[in-house]
Amino acid sequence: MGAKTLQDVLDASDDIVTLLRNSQVGAYVYPVVPPEFTNWRDEQRAWRETAVLFDQSHHMAEIMVEGPDAFDFLQGLAINSFANFDVNKAKQFVPCTHDGYVIGDVIIFRLAEQQFLLVGRAPTINWVEFHAQTSGKSVTTERDDRSPARPGGKPVMRKRYRYQVQGPNAPEILERVNGGPVPNIKFFNMGEITIAGRKVRALRHGMSGVPGLEIWGPYEEGDEIRDALLEAGKDLGLTQVGSRAYATNTLESGWIPSPLPAVYTGEGQKAYREWLPAAGYEATCSIGGSYIADSIEDYYLTPWDLGYGPFVKFDHDFIGREALEKLADKPHRRKVTFEWNAEDVGKVMQSMFAAPGENFKTIDLPLSNYASSSYDAVQMGGKTVGLSMFSGYSFNERSMLSLGVVDEDINTGDILTLVWGEPDGGTAKTTVERHKQTEIRVKVSPVPYSKDARENYVESWRTRSA
Amino acid sequence: MGAKTLQDVLDASDDIVTLLRNSQVGAYVYPVVPPEFTNWRDEQRAWRETAVLFDQSHHMAEIMVEGPDAFDFLQGLAINSFANFDVNKAKQFVPCTHDGYVIGDVIIFRLAEQQFLLVGRAPTINWVEFHAQTSGKSVTTERDDRSPARPGGKPVMRKRYRYQVQGPNAPEILERVNGGPVPNIKFFNMGEITIAGRKVRALRHGMSGVPGLEIWGPYEEGDEIRDALLEAGKDLGLTQVGSRAYATNTLESGWIPSPLPAVYTGEGQKAYREWLPAAGYEATCSIGGSYIADSIEDYYLTPWDLGYGPFVKFDHDFIGREALEKLADKPHRRKVTFEWNAEDVGKVMQSMFAAPGENFKTIDLPLSNYASSSYDAVQMGGKTVGLSMFSGYSFNERSMLSLGVVDEDINTGDILTLVWGEPDGGTAKTTVERHKQTEIRVKVSPVPYSKDARENYVESWRTRSA
Repeated sequence: MGAKTLQDVLDASDDIVTLLRNSQVGAYVYPVVPPEFTNWRDEQRAWRETAVLFDQSHHMAEIMVEGPDAFDFLQGLAINSFANFDVNKAKQFVPCTHDGYVIGDVIIFRLAEQQFLLVGRAPTINWVEFHAQTSGKSVTTERDDRSPARPGGKPVMRKRYRYQVQGPNAPEILERVNGGPVPNIKFFNMGEITIAGRKVRALRHGMSGVPGLEIWGPYEEGDEIRDALLEAGKDLGLTQVGSRAYATNTLESGWIPSPLPAVYTGEGQKAYREWLPAAGYEATCSIGGSYIADSIEDYYLTPWDLGYGPFVKFDHDFIGREALEKLADKPHRRKVTFEWNAEDVGKVMQSMFAAPGENFKTIDLPLSNYASSSYDAVQMGGKTVGLSMFSGYSFNERSMLSLGVVDEDINTGDILTLVWGEPDGGTAKTTVERHKQTEIRVKVSPVPYSKDARENYVESWRTRSA
Repeated sequence: MGAKTLQDVLDASDDIVTLLRNSQVGAYVYPVVPPEFTNWRDEQRAWRETAVLFDQSHHMAEIMVEGPDAFDFLQGLAINSFANFDVNKAKQFVPCTHDGYVIGDVIIFRLAEQQFLLVGRAPTINWVEFHAQTSGKSVTTERDDRSPARPGGKPVMRKRYRYQVQGPNAPEILERVNGGPVPNIKFFNMGEITIAGRKVRALRHGMSGVPGLEIWGPYEEGDEIRDALLEAGKDLGLTQVGSRAYATNTLESGWIPSPLPAVYTGEGQKAYREWLPAAGYEATCSIGGSYIADSIEDYYLTPWDLGYGPFVKFDHDFIGREALEKLADKPHRRKVTFEWNAEDVGKVMQSMFAAPGENFKTIDLPLSNYASSSYDAVQMGGKTVGLSMFSGYSFNERSMLSLGVVDEDINTGDILTLVWGEPDGGTAKTTVERHKQTEIRVKVSPVPYSKDARENYVESWRTRSA
């Protein structure tokens, strides 16, 4: 009784897989931002054809890391090289366990010589905070958790607003608000622009495969900055993106947001498990989908599986280095996009008119995930050869797509079978109605899937990792 | 320039139909309440099989009417008889224009001899407020508008919380919180129960076709009351219903929420149009769907069309009486449920995989309305014989359903053709992506459609009106 830590939860359970597959935490929500501003189809279309304003102020946790040892401390957690990581640069920061499996990933901003801001899902933020408290390094942290999933009319405050302006018309919109040319910031470098008379820090980014900026500042200034952007973009098709369309962007650009953090096993992570709370992300997150492994370790992924192979640099010491050195020359799975067969998807949709007990798992549109981490088995001849890990519909591609991994011997163009839904009527997750399992044919496709992103986004790791 | 009133808007436009069909007001949102608590399928199922908690604190406007003339004043606006409208009773209050067309409808609660609370969509609340200000009657009003559609993390305050507990297990849950038998309140009568040590006013209601209570009180006490209900109902399947499932309840129980208020024409409404603001509901609301009339008056409905015929009582004087007396013996349209053909709906869904330009209007699930007021043409042999006015999917019935009206000579069981989507690629409403029109077969069905509601809800007007 009274589990206080993740380790307590594990000690009290003889089957963590079943526990997380039946988690009662509910849907992974993109909070506060309304479901739709216009409609999710046109919001998707806007990032391809005109411009979008993504409001990322609410769904990610942040941690500021400062102090004389900040650079060294963070380098010691990253598979990435910090060799050319200068002030005013950002990068995707990937920590691994001592065993070489991925904890998660966040964007890390080097704001000053010894000041770094990390932004993303909780698992990496937790890992960084734990090590800051226990490593003995001279660093301090200030954490800002994501907004509540269901604020229900209660006021929501963050430390910072965070917006992205993306799409073909983004440069013109940003030039307008800036009152002149936007500084020519390189990809994943930071600069400064002026909005509504305020100097605003900006990262050159391009989630949707076309150039744009991510900007942030004090949360209290967020409304003013947003209004100025919307005013500047109103005749250029600048479209606010709601929470329904938002996360589907990654289906076109190819980042897998939600691997299960590989922290449930391994001696190296024991102290961490004793530090993580029983009510936190790791102890309560849900696993969804048809892939059911005997061991929680089967859900872990290496950097290579997730397309982070090019990040692994043995030019520095870091947690997991030894394990990764051993894995480096082994076969790796590979990140792909799965293009879902339209006819099979139609069959799933049509099943909503079948008698109770005959319906398949609802494919909710445009985002069809129903857990914190999705793991659907992708098979060839009845053997699991891949995992589908994030799925939804793209109005730009007129297709259901998912991101995932396949074994080394699977080729682009191969037609595989995705097992859709959970066995035995479904787990007890709150997001799961009673349903039957079925099969959906999927075609192994490049990542990023988006033709635009593939052709116009050459600086990105996403292309390099494909 | 600078339209201040609805009349200004009309004076500046030569085509109010086109104006409202292209309104930029956006989706009619059920605000603040999260989209889903569990998942919309199981939330629908709960009102049929266990129990639901509807949070109605945010999507309706309220107006309190008090003063020595309150009873007379309100009676003078209502087609309904006030003859047996005693203190502690409630009724559905339907005002008409001087020309006998429906403004809207709300629930009116007689809280005290000369104190009435009206709760519902804006058009009726506006009409009551206007007449309170201009009738010369001795009444005062206090208005509380619906919560903002997209609060974006800003605090939301209402005067009152408003919940319904409905479903087969509702009586047991309410008995538990009350700490003993719930007073045997008659349908649409009020009583008092105790929740969390507080006396709470309660209306016997049954939106979902099974007995339940609607309760309300000071907004600040809402969290406490909700927590007590959830605690009492947790092993009885009490399920909170999110904004996605909420409004689909009416598809099973048969109330049409959103006729266009019939205020755009008629000398009798001219002063009202000059009072209504240019930014208000009437001047900005959107008309959606395939039914396109030459005149705005073709969108107006009589009480008989909407199933309110039994309410019309000439035992008192009221606005519209003279017009209704003339209409009483004329042919009336009749309220029905349309059961949509599963195969045709499947064809619409499948079109999301077609090439751009070949897709039909998205049927969003579970609620597929895309305007403040939906008007889809329902045809027989190419002639419009009905209107579909509120549509969505019911997991309980495993069917797409809509509510609407048909001409007198249309029979239950007739198969008609619903024209789905708007012509010419669609209007400029923000909710409308470019699409093609198509046809969906619909079967004329009873209202309420729900077998449970039809058989167990005998006291209701909904049955009487069928």
